[in-house]
Amino acid sequence: MTRPFNFSAGPATLPEEVLQQAASEMLDWHGSGMGVMEMSHRGKEFISIAQQAEADLRDVLAIPAHFKVLFMQGGAIAQNAILPLNLSRGGRTDYVITGSWSQKSAKEARKFCDVHVAATNEADTHTQLPAYDSWQLSDDAAYVHVCSNETIHGVEMHELPDLAALGSKAPLVIDCSSHIASRPIDWSRVAMAYAGAQKNIGPAGLTLVIIREDLLGHALPICPTIFDYKIQADNDSMYNTPPTYGIYMAGLVFQWIKQQREGALTGLAAIEARNIAKAQLFYDYVDASGFYTNKVGANCRSRMNIPFFLPGDALNEPFLSGAKEAGLLQLKGHKSVGGMRASIYNAMPLAGVQALVGYMKDFAQRHG
Amino acid sequence: MTRPFNFSAGPATLPEEVLQQAASEMLDWHGSGMGVMEMSHRGKEFISIAQQAEADLRDVLAIPAHFKVLFMQGGAIAQNAILPLNLSRGGRTDYVITGSWSQKSAKEARKFCDVHVAATNEADTHTQLPAYDSWQLSDDAAYVHVCSNETIHGVEMHELPDLAALGSKAPLVIDCSSHIASRPIDWSRVAMAYAGAQKNIGPAGLTLVIIREDLLGHALPICPTIFDYKIQADNDSMYNTPPTYGIYMAGLVFQWIKQQREGALTGLAAIEARNIAKAQLFYDYVDASGFYTNKVGANCRSRMNIPFFLPGDALNEPFLSGAKEAGLLQLKGHKSVGGMRASIYNAMPLAGVQALVGYMKDFAQRHG
Repeated sequence: MTRPFNFSAGPATLPEEVLQQAASEMLDWHGSGMGVMEMSHRGKEFISIAQQAEADLRDVLAIPAHFKVLFMQGGAIAQNAILPLNLSRGGRTDYVITGSWSQKSAKEARKFCDVHVAATNEADTHTQLPAYDSWQLSDDAAYVHVCSNETIHGVEMHELPDLAALGSKAPLVIDCSSHIASRPIDWSRVAMAYAGAQKNIGPAGLTLVIIREDLLGHALPICPTIFDYKIQADNDSMYNTPPTYGIYMAGLVFQWIKQQREGALTGLAAIEARNIAKAQLFYDYVDASGFYTNKVGANCRSRMNIPFFLPGDALNEPFLSGAKEAGLLQLKGHKSVGGMRASIYNAMPLAGVQALVGYMKDFAQRHG
Repeated sequence: MTRPFNFSAGPATLPEEVLQQAASEMLDWHGSGMGVMEMSHRGKEFISIAQQAEADLRDVLAIPAHFKVLFMQGGAIAQNAILPLNLSRGGRTDYVITGSWSQKSAKEARKFCDVHVAATNEADTHTQLPAYDSWQLSDDAAYVHVCSNETIHGVEMHELPDLAALGSKAPLVIDCSSHIASRPIDWSRVAMAYAGAQKNIGPAGLTLVIIREDLLGHALPICPTIFDYKIQADNDSMYNTPPTYGIYMAGLVFQWIKQQREGALTGLAAIEARNIAKAQLFYDYVDASGFYTNKVGANCRSRMNIPFFLPGDALNEPFLSGAKEAGLLQLKGHKSVGGMRASIYNAMPLAGVQALVGYMKDFAQRHG
């Protein structure tokens, strides 16, 4: 059976091999007599699953030893509160606005600290990255927050900011929910990365936090205990019952990433090369089509989430219903942007993008 | 294949039929071409899953229309903070201590409000329920909190307190994590119930909150937005991406409950009758054995979590290793109590308890 191609922005398509393995192990994991969902999180079986998942993530993303990996709950939106509760010390923080998600992060942080908007692309309706010479970083920010890939507006930082070069000594915190594990992370520039898992990694309900150890231990007294990064770090993310099945699924995805091959490339390098090729195929077609448009600046077009527009909104419904018939699912754009959006995460094969482009060519011919 | 019997306190055993259905739908839910984990939470497929899960839960627990059902994240330990953030208004609250979990709840609440311990069974090492005539309820408590089943100490409130009869006008909040859906809830006595799902319902990472509507809308300004009950209620628990797969699994478990039959009884009544029979079989044997002991008062012995002790700690390891060989898993007691613990949630069949008692008889004969 061929499955349709699912372009959902998240929760999103998963590798078929991963789903097959999960289905085959549902009632009995490795001869333990228990499914993963039924295991005590403190038993040796589940602890081995969690440790392997962390080890594989460290391997995939080359996470240095002085960073802790935390498996948390609540998604990136919870982190919008948990981050300032842990790192702001109630003082000044810098936020760079590049789209809906960074805007939402800044708004929530205002509950807990003094938020300074250091740069924004609102004047460009979130289609360009604010030029570095426009960034007004504070002298005393507890951290600088960016969203390195805006899922809704389709804006990606292809290079992470070098805060030291911009004159800031603050640690850089990135919300990389929608492009984590799509490319390497330069840990010399990043002090903390967080991501909801339901886009590029696995099931909704798991959040990854990767944090430099020296940032731990400064939570505000009003921080709920389970959201204190230091307490979770000291308890191997098991101060409370973690989302065990989500950790298991994420672990299967990390192993899948490690097994990927693309020519001479392996693992994350293979994934990144494939993501570049997929995005290029798509953008090249859109730009050449004379029918579809994408409004994002060429230097910051997301490889993961591509909003695009038809020549008129009246074509949206015919486009979507034809796509569904062609086995191309969940292409409707976010309501705040309109139009269409193709999310082409790691688990979307090149064949899926080729099928989408093929359908778009055909549709443009019929309606052009 | 016969699966072993898994007595884990949580995450815990699930009905085999539920796991089989989940496995069979992993790659394609109802012909949608997507697994549940891959669906947008805002798409019609997942919304139908979430609505059905809520409708079935309302049916199983006979939840009145003026209560909201919220699907949240973070487990009961997160609720220890989220509850006072939403309901305390920073003022006085009453907590009744009956074991480790209610103790933990009271401790966390102290971060956010004035916690008054209205009653405690500490003097009885958490083996008796504090008599109602010892309860010292406040005149002005924002709520009264009890843990209606203490997973670690094995103490259950077989009847929920009638606060009005005790002279309190405060709403009663129950942490029913480890016995939710094991018996009916008297909603005339309860204003809010919360439960981590990973014991009697499904996967870790999902929390159920069932709350009377008039209590919504009083969150403290420092409450993270995703944990504001009113905001989640207004957004059908989708202010952020909910733990979609957990909601799906919980929904399958609710359907399984509705399908249960025990003589002339159906659904939750059948489940309750079976739970009473399972617990009675176990306690009757322990009491008659002259070998094993359970220290909990006869009027408050949990039907779900049964701590028990062998005549000497030296027997613990032989007991556990023999049990594992006999296909009886995860019987080790909680470290704070010691000894053994059998958790016999809804999904544990009578045959599992019979097998455990059979093994215990044999072990007692060999070591008595």
